[in-house]
Amino acid sequence: MESRNIRLAVIPGDGIGTEVVAEGLKVLEAVGTKIEPTHYDLGAARYHRTGETLPDAVLEELRGYDAILLGAVGDPSVPPGILERDLLLRLRFEFDHYVNLRPVKLFPGVETPLADTPSEDIDMIVVREGTEGLYAGTGGVMRRGTKHEIATQESLNTAHGVERVVRYAFEKARSRPRKKLTLVHKTNVLTFAGDLWQRTVDRVAEEYPEVATDYCHIDAASMFFVTQPERFDVVVTDNLFGDIITDLGAAIAGGIGLAASGNINPEGTAPSMFEPVHGSAPDIAGQGKADPTATILSVAMLLDHLGLREQAARVEQAVADDILERLTGWAGRTTHEIGDDITARVSG
Amino acid sequence: MESRNIRLAVIPGDGIGTEVVAEGLKVLEAVGTKIEPTHYDLGAARYHRTGETLPDAVLEELRGYDAILLGAVGDPSVPPGILERDLLLRLRFEFDHYVNLRPVKLFPGVETPLADTPSEDIDMIVVREGTEGLYAGTGGVMRRGTKHEIATQESLNTAHGVERVVRYAFEKARSRPRKKLTLVHKTNVLTFAGDLWQRTVDRVAEEYPEVATDYCHIDAASMFFVTQPERFDVVVTDNLFGDIITDLGAAIAGGIGLAASGNINPEGTAPSMFEPVHGSAPDIAGQGKADPTATILSVAMLLDHLGLREQAARVEQAVADDILERLTGWAGRTTHEIGDDITARVSG
Ligand SMILES: CC(C)[C@H](C(=O)O)[C@@H](O)C(=O)O
Ligand SMILES: CC(C)[C@H](C(=O)O)[C@@H](O)C(=O)O
Repeated sequence: MESRNIRLAVIPGDGIGTEVVAEGLKVLEAVGTKIEPTHYDLGAARYHRTGETLPDAVLEELRGYDAILLGAVGDPSVPPGILERDLLLRLRFEFDHYVNLRPVKLFPGVETPLADTPSEDIDMIVVREGTEGLYAGTGGVMRRGTKHEIATQESLNTAHGVERVVRYAFEKARSRPRKKLTLVHKTNVLTFAGDLWQRTVDRVAEEYPEVATDYCHIDAASMFFVTQPERFDVVVTDNLFGDIITDLGAAIAGGIGLAASGNINPEGTAPSMFEPVHGSAPDIAGQGKADPTATILSVAMLLDHLGLREQAARVEQAVADDILERLTGWAGRTTHEIGDDITARVSG
Repeated sequence: MESRNIRLAVIPGDGIGTEVVAEGLKVLEAVGTKIEPTHYDLGAARYHRTGETLPDAVLEELRGYDAILLGAVGDPSVPPGILERDLLLRLRFEFDHYVNLRPVKLFPGVETPLADTPSEDIDMIVVREGTEGLYAGTGGVMRRGTKHEIATQESLNTAHGVERVVRYAFEKARSRPRKKLTLVHKTNVLTFAGDLWQRTVDRVAEEYPEVATDYCHIDAASMFFVTQPERFDVVVTDNLFGDIITDLGAAIAGGIGLAASGNINPEGTAPSMFEPVHGSAPDIAGQGKADPTATILSVAMLLDHLGLREQAARVEQAVADDILERLTGWAGRTTHEIGDDITARVSG
């Protein structure tokens, strides 16, 4: 461990983002780290006030932090895509978060919507590519608003971009007991991109003889997430398929209130960013109804990423214990109360 | 009803395709129609024998039929994409099957993998666009096999293509008791295509004041299919999102063995094509293990499309009755036996 304080940029964002981040920070403080948070006011409110989403100067400032904790961005008052593209996705792209790491794990005691599925059947990690594919934002529109309008979107995939995330996924797979890696794509329709992904997996697989590799089309994978989640250990997939399948993963693992994620720059050339998978949920914002657990688990991922493994484990354990307790009555706890309960376990 | 015989082209295809189509035809015969089937040998076997997927002459011949019944195409011995693109997708594109109609309905008596979900909660119809989007097949590759490879895929969306399928979906929604239409897309990331889809839905909605419209991102929709399937009545979506979400729909509605589909050319400028949603399942082919129900339900859709509504209803009822019976013991019936049982109900 370094002796200087760890510098954390905090972007609470919109809606329930601010509520859940407050609880995440409470836990972070209680677990005892030399982490020094600085808040950044970015999101819908700032956009309305100043027209800014992510000023270049702020972006450069953020680059100097050791990590970023983000709540959620997005509000119905802002046209779709603005905050997403110019703030959230811009951070992922500028900071080269090519690994979007999303565990899909059913904690004992959590109810899954799937019947007869023991918790050990849902324990995978999705390694979603974070900087390419259809998220590149290329495409365009011609003759907008006429009968002859054409709108295009382009998926950009590079050997560089695919190989590095595939390697990361193999490393993850090697470190897990089941050592299985499944590529999820749609190689039979997206033949150019699919061929690049499949060839890359096949080639890298030769360096990991201990990892069993598998392939699944995205449509079949969506089905298997529901009918046979135990098929999956590490899933590697592109940006859009990863987006879809991790929300589905959150659903089967007890809901979006528990799903954590890390936007990782593995080489550390820029800060990694941790955020719950859920959005800003404007419909329940400000009512203390949001579950901060996803953010608290994202804080655990952040601690782990910073090398604070003991603290990370303590937060995860506190969450697991809190969840088990829910079996005996959970309804009605507010965002604060859940945060307080987990904080107490972490400190105690 | 026309008095001439109805001409049906039958493409059993690969793997379990041939097995399930045989049962579908048995039911079709038993229900009493003047349908005259002609078999076409297309798929992996033909490809290996002659190198052909869909010769132009065969395509032109198929154009002359009143409808097409397809089993499944695809085999691991053929590189991914060849049979899919050059046979299945070519038929959808050449015959302008712009509506890919996929009911997601939980029959009473069918077990869903979702806990505590009454069958009336899963009763929707997905109207998937069938001729555009990422399925256009445009894109390419540069510097293949090198470190500098770039592979692209393009999603093409036209006002013409989007509006016609959206109109179809509104018509469907209007005819259903709940009269609700949900656009599923990813407007916050696929901003060009999403904008075209959203504007089109908004504009057409003005002509259908009795239909309630809603919007859901594909990632959230995947979650809601599992946690709140009752949210959906008619879903309209693009080709790729429709592909994913209908497999997920099949999963929640009791499995791919029951999921039917129609590739519809609503104007009748070319024959419509009916097929189970499932694939050729080479792993269980030739063993009598495939459930022919999805094909038999596709036959019901075919009958309905041809205006033979009474017969269509009879087939659907026979399937519903057969499924109810499964409650009292289903395991072990072969493909043939299920076909025979449904045939007996249709005739009896
Ligand atoms: C908000 C949106 C742009 C984002 C995405 O699509 O990546 C979100 O859905 C996620 O999964 O983090
Ligand atoms: C076989 C494949 C090309 C096809 C598709 O992607 O449309 C299938 O998955 C389907 O849903 O009919």
